[in-house]
Amino acid sequence: MSQPPILHIPPRTIMTPGPVEAEPSVLKAMSSSILGQFDPGFTQIMNDTMVSLRKVLQTDNHWAFPVDGTSRAGIEAMLCSVIEEGDRVLIPCFGRFGYLLTEIAERSGAEVHLMACEWGKVFEPAQVIAEMERVKPKVVAMVHGDTSTGRMQPLKDIGQACRDLDMLLIVDAVATVGGTDVKTDEWNIDGLITGTQKCLSVPSGLAPLTYNDRIEQILNERKSIEKGLIPPGENKGGMSPQGGRSGGIGRRIRSNYLDLSQLQDYWSPARLNHHTEATSMIYGLYEGLRVILQEGLPARFDRHRLNEKALVAGLEAMGLSLFGDPASKLPTVTCVNIPANIHGDSVRAMLLEEFGIEIASSFGPLHGKIWRIGTMGYSCQKRNILLTLGAFEAVLLRHGAKLYVGSGVQAAMDVYEEAAKPNHEVTAK
Amino acid sequence: MSQPPILHIPPRTIMTPGPVEAEPSVLKAMSSSILGQFDPGFTQIMNDTMVSLRKVLQTDNHWAFPVDGTSRAGIEAMLCSVIEEGDRVLIPCFGRFGYLLTEIAERSGAEVHLMACEWGKVFEPAQVIAEMERVKPKVVAMVHGDTSTGRMQPLKDIGQACRDLDMLLIVDAVATVGGTDVKTDEWNIDGLITGTQKCLSVPSGLAPLTYNDRIEQILNERKSIEKGLIPPGENKGGMSPQGGRSGGIGRRIRSNYLDLSQLQDYWSPARLNHHTEATSMIYGLYEGLRVILQEGLPARFDRHRLNEKALVAGLEAMGLSLFGDPASKLPTVTCVNIPANIHGDSVRAMLLEEFGIEIASSFGPLHGKIWRIGTMGYSCQKRNILLTLGAFEAVLLRHGAKLYVGSGVQAAMDVYEEAAKPNHEVTAK
Repeated sequence: MSQPPILHIPPRTIMTPGPVEAEPSVLKAMSSSILGQFDPGFTQIMNDTMVSLRKVLQTDNHWAFPVDGTSRAGIEAMLCSVIEEGDRVLIPCFGRFGYLLTEIAERSGAEVHLMACEWGKVFEPAQVIAEMERVKPKVVAMVHGDTSTGRMQPLKDIGQACRDLDMLLIVDAVATVGGTDVKTDEWNIDGLITGTQKCLSVPSGLAPLTYNDRIEQILNERKSIEKGLIPPGENKGGMSPQGGRSGGIGRRIRSNYLDLSQLQDYWSPARLNHHTEATSMIYGLYEGLRVILQEGLPARFDRHRLNEKALVAGLEAMGLSLFGDPASKLPTVTCVNIPANIHGDSVRAMLLEEFGIEIASSFGPLHGKIWRIGTMGYSCQKRNILLTLGAFEAVLLRHGAKLYVGSGVQAAMDVYEEAAKPNHEVTAK
Repeated sequence: MSQPPILHIPPRTIMTPGPVEAEPSVLKAMSSSILGQFDPGFTQIMNDTMVSLRKVLQTDNHWAFPVDGTSRAGIEAMLCSVIEEGDRVLIPCFGRFGYLLTEIAERSGAEVHLMACEWGKVFEPAQVIAEMERVKPKVVAMVHGDTSTGRMQPLKDIGQACRDLDMLLIVDAVATVGGTDVKTDEWNIDGLITGTQKCLSVPSGLAPLTYNDRIEQILNERKSIEKGLIPPGENKGGMSPQGGRSGGIGRRIRSNYLDLSQLQDYWSPARLNHHTEATSMIYGLYEGLRVILQEGLPARFDRHRLNEKALVAGLEAMGLSLFGDPASKLPTVTCVNIPANIHGDSVRAMLLEEFGIEIASSFGPLHGKIWRIGTMGYSCQKRNILLTLGAFEAVLLRHGAKLYVGSGVQAAMDVYEEAAKPNHEVTAK
């Protein structure tokens, strides 16, 4: 039987909208030895992770913990734990990841009301609020930053309206948390999900989320306890012969793995056994959050803005145009129109093969129309921006594109030079 | 704002039934830099992981890949992708993890027929086959090795009967794969799930699974494609206005994250976008499987048997008794009856705090009645057995237990000495 080869990882600069490069100290943390899931040394790490997560998610919610799966596992955990059969859910959709919310909500039994806008724009909050008043959903589910189109939806007014109309606001903030301001509490977001592999700069595999007591109340009503877990002496109310306890009939959460009512018991002092926590990923998240809090959120957002500014300046100086409405640009993703007669995927392939730099294409109707360049987390640094612009120019020239040769990198360097001057402030967009 | 402390991992010897210590080279692999999920360097690793997985799972099935979640994510993926509303599922249950199958099958819409036996025993295959003939289920779902009771269920005859009666056999082999023989194809197992954190000695967080064409056929019938993924020009059959394609009405899989029909497209050359693969965990799995294949399955199972034999000899020589029917003992977990007047959790706490050694208690009716000691993967080595026996004796003495002092470690050393003699063969149980 032939033996598998030794693991080979080619060197890469990752400038996609995720997964991006992980913080080196995160990768080191992940190589630490294993701890048992109920070892006090490990439960302390879990508790400390919750504390850091609350700060990064800008919330006072008690519940802030990761689901052991990639971002969409967190989205599904939130939606399937909150949505019951026939619940009306309004989904204002401005890109691919709005359709993902639709898909997951439908599978959770929701009656979905979809409102869509042209890809490259977002909604006027008033439009969404008018639809909320008409549809009267239990839940409004929205993406904050949709990487497929590089747009960011303002949420503050929608959040306030949800509170006023007694609806729940659930937000997919996978592309924004850790890279730009996401004010969970101030914007009245009831449930918020993010992912590790973008601006948190931790490898893909966890979906940190948070929710408030409005959502917790629903979870508690739907809670059940697994058969075979409760000792015989402790049977209280509603027990089945095998020792389980079920939530209200017909209200049971459809997933066991993604059941937030059980997950919160596991993340509470009760430590009620559920899955076996993904030890090494938790180490990585712990360290990733630590690095973020050490940098400080305002400084981190400034860094993201500065590198985005340099990237945009470079691309435009080169003669390329950006896709989408500038007013709603997502600061962590820049979408570039692929010039006529240039094969987008061929450019990406040459960039990867010859320079070891990865940028992304997009999905569905935008595939072949735009490139997407991420400025996220550890990948979002001056060196990467300058190397990417230089390599991108070279590859485009090799593909016969007409460019202002040499201008891209210079324009970006100008931005950095300007920013380094005393008393300079990066202006918020 | 106070800063979180530096990550602290106390040194541990983990002798529980999981999570166990990870292979050192696995932890090193996991600290490798990130690759994009569609980077050819990464898709090669995915493909190679499938090749290794087939070998470790002893199958020629095409589909063998991990779900990005812990073991129960894999179990739920398999059950919710196969089970449709109202499907009859027979679950012969001999411990806690049989109830977990019940719980997940019920949430997937199954009409569950549970047969339970006393904890500490397993089923005579004929009993199960008789119930299969009576109930006529679509699926028989069983645990192979249930760590809660330390028992292992023989599956060969049940697998043959499933094929003869045209039922599907789905097996939770989380506690056995990589530590003792699991013959997926030879035993006619249609769908099999394992986890990384036990005998594979990879951190918790992935659930490798495999299934054959009988299951693939169901998946293909239920397949849907996400809206927003398909370019306008490629719309074929059954398209919704937003570009998605749904499976047969009413047959849609309840989960998106755990939808095997979509996951198999992501693990195929089509690479249809689903989640963002958990890069570092895949590196870990790749390396963990490589180490297993380098050791070789027969040698690995011998090592597990030898260390189990030494552990059992040591415990019995000390004067302790084992829980459960010896004929069905799970070779990777040894359950010890807690002597009268000894507080089981206090013993475990002292073992952890004073010696840095972790053993487990059990669940439900067995909590406080037995300790469980794992001999799994990298944790399953002579040094760990000897240190654990010595420390266990010391802690038990400290708790006032009556023991044959000094005999435990000596008995284990005798086993190793005997095994080291020329021409010695570890006899299969």
